[in-house]
Amino acid sequence: MASTIKDVAKKAGVAPSTVSRVIADNSRISLSTKKRVRKAMKQLGYHPNINARNLAVRSTQAIGVVMPSSADTALQNPFFPEVLRGIGSFAHETEYSLYVSTGGDDDDIFEEVQRMVHGNRVDGIILLYSRISDSVQQFLMEEEFPFVIIGKPSEQENEITHVDNDNYKASLELTNHLIDIGHQNIAFIGGSDELTVTIDRLQGYRQAIQEAGLPLPEEYIVHVEFLKSGGREAVEQLFSLQTPPTGLVVADDLMSLGVINMLEEIGLNCPEDVSITSFNNLYLAEITTPPLTTVDIQIYMLGVHAARCLIEKAQNKDEPAKRIIVPHEVKYRQSTKEIDPTK
Amino acid sequence: MASTIKDVAKKAGVAPSTVSRVIADNSRISLSTKKRVRKAMKQLGYHPNINARNLAVRSTQAIGVVMPSSADTALQNPFFPEVLRGIGSFAHETEYSLYVSTGGDDDDIFEEVQRMVHGNRVDGIILLYSRISDSVQQFLMEEEFPFVIIGKPSEQENEITHVDNDNYKASLELTNHLIDIGHQNIAFIGGSDELTVTIDRLQGYRQAIQEAGLPLPEEYIVHVEFLKSGGREAVEQLFSLQTPPTGLVVADDLMSLGVINMLEEIGLNCPEDVSITSFNNLYLAEITTPPLTTVDIQIYMLGVHAARCLIEKAQNKDEPAKRIIVPHEVKYRQSTKEIDPTK
Repeated sequence: MASTIKDVAKKAGVAPSTVSRVIADNSRISLSTKKRVRKAMKQLGYHPNINARNLAVRSTQAIGVVMPSSADTALQNPFFPEVLRGIGSFAHETEYSLYVSTGGDDDDIFEEVQRMVHGNRVDGIILLYSRISDSVQQFLMEEEFPFVIIGKPSEQENEITHVDNDNYKASLELTNHLIDIGHQNIAFIGGSDELTVTIDRLQGYRQAIQEAGLPLPEEYIVHVEFLKSGGREAVEQLFSLQTPPTGLVVADDLMSLGVINMLEEIGLNCPEDVSITSFNNLYLAEITTPPLTTVDIQIYMLGVHAARCLIEKAQNKDEPAKRIIVPHEVKYRQSTKEIDPTK
Repeated sequence: MASTIKDVAKKAGVAPSTVSRVIADNSRISLSTKKRVRKAMKQLGYHPNINARNLAVRSTQAIGVVMPSSADTALQNPFFPEVLRGIGSFAHETEYSLYVSTGGDDDDIFEEVQRMVHGNRVDGIILLYSRISDSVQQFLMEEEFPFVIIGKPSEQENEITHVDNDNYKASLELTNHLIDIGHQNIAFIGGSDELTVTIDRLQGYRQAIQEAGLPLPEEYIVHVEFLKSGGREAVEQLFSLQTPPTGLVVADDLMSLGVINMLEEIGLNCPEDVSITSFNNLYLAEITTPPLTTVDIQIYMLGVHAARCLIEKAQNKDEPAKRIIVPHEVKYRQSTKEIDPTK
């Protein structure tokens, strides 16, 4: 006969209600009691029926992860597997599983999040993106459902727990590096201008250019997709201008890979003709020709911190909203070169 | 007041039991009826309580995805995000979400799969690996729970639906290519010798070497992890031999990247000194220096086919076991070079 909660309680020497709380991973139960009860469950081969359990205590031991677009497109950029890796690592330690969205467009994603919340499928949600007036963020706020954003919320910043980098400062550093080595015509290639990450990186670039009193024609600011194809597209636009740039601030390494490829096709060389600075330090940044000067944003740690904050929030609704800024570091490699003043 | 199944039924002009079947995605309901009912649900803002629904009809609209090791380690190899991309794409079309394992070692993974099955968390499971006498495979067989393997089952091949490449043949082709361009000392670098994918690739290599009557010392066969570090380790072993190889068959591109790095460190050049043939055609295979001659195994399509087979099986328990062999293609690039007979 299958064992019951009572059998487990007896074996572990605790009350049946304690067993229920352990199953629900209630934070009031001490770690040593949890261990003892879990051991008894294992020895008796007891498996709580998770659905019955959900209805009773509303703990699913699962974290919802929402991608910015369909998993199909997003997973092409190594940022997402790397951030999932960080989330998965913390989830693993705390015995949570991941429930990953597959929705394609905004409507799909919104419906999927509604299913996660109303269907009681997950204990909380991590949004892997943040954009202006996002209906998913608003919905989660209204529902008072635990969620964490990787990136910066576009509004209600103090009420939403988020894990971010100082993208403004990092972009300022990259642009100043190009200025320091003599570049005067510097363009910016970013993702959608509705994403807060693009807005912050653009602002850092603008600030540096303006402080240095350099030209900033609006054609020098290009918004494309966070994919290799986006980088190619940007090169087509920028290098058909009358005064093409000699330096680039590119918001993502995969884009930069596309930039390098396309420059080659139109007969330009990096770093001889064009210097590239980039973001994210994806592992591909080290194996491109040339290796990229790029900002290490510690993607893995963004995931770990987000998972930790979310689980804290899911276990204790009174946990205050937090902001965590993960430190960044510019990795100087061979994609930038001093301007030759004799040219 | 929240709307009920009856409200939805009335609005869509069907019986309430039909609405329940649509919620459960019963395959007997026509697509047009499903669309009509779903539209009514949307208009009325009706959200089925998914847990109540699970208890009633046991459909979760989720696919379990089991990684070979912790998501943490596995996601370092771009194979996994790419296969998830394929699975996610098909799941998206059929409105399934993904439930991804985070377990670290074999015991963790086994427990997580038990939770998925006994907790009724998923409709079926895709195993992203296959190894000899795997307790997870055996458990799923005993439970008669729908599952699909990406790779080749180590036993009961005719009873388990699996999606695979012809790894034996692909490996034979790579090895013959090295032989054709004059290499006589050819070594094999594979993953764990318990994985069926390694066994098949090793067998193809052996066959080609033996057919050509070339030397095959056991030291030429090295088993390491499917990571960059594994490739580095293998080079240390092979290039301290008295007769080091001039040609390599490497079971994974990320390993090959490690091989190239480590060769460089010990003063050897690819392809001048050592020719490399590889597997998987990860996108990094095109941007390494030199770009890799590698087998395109169509990782994305492996994922798509696995998801399709699993959902068919989950919706119809009588669906027979299938084997799907996704075609492969060798991509010839610059990592192999004809042996100079004057050397």
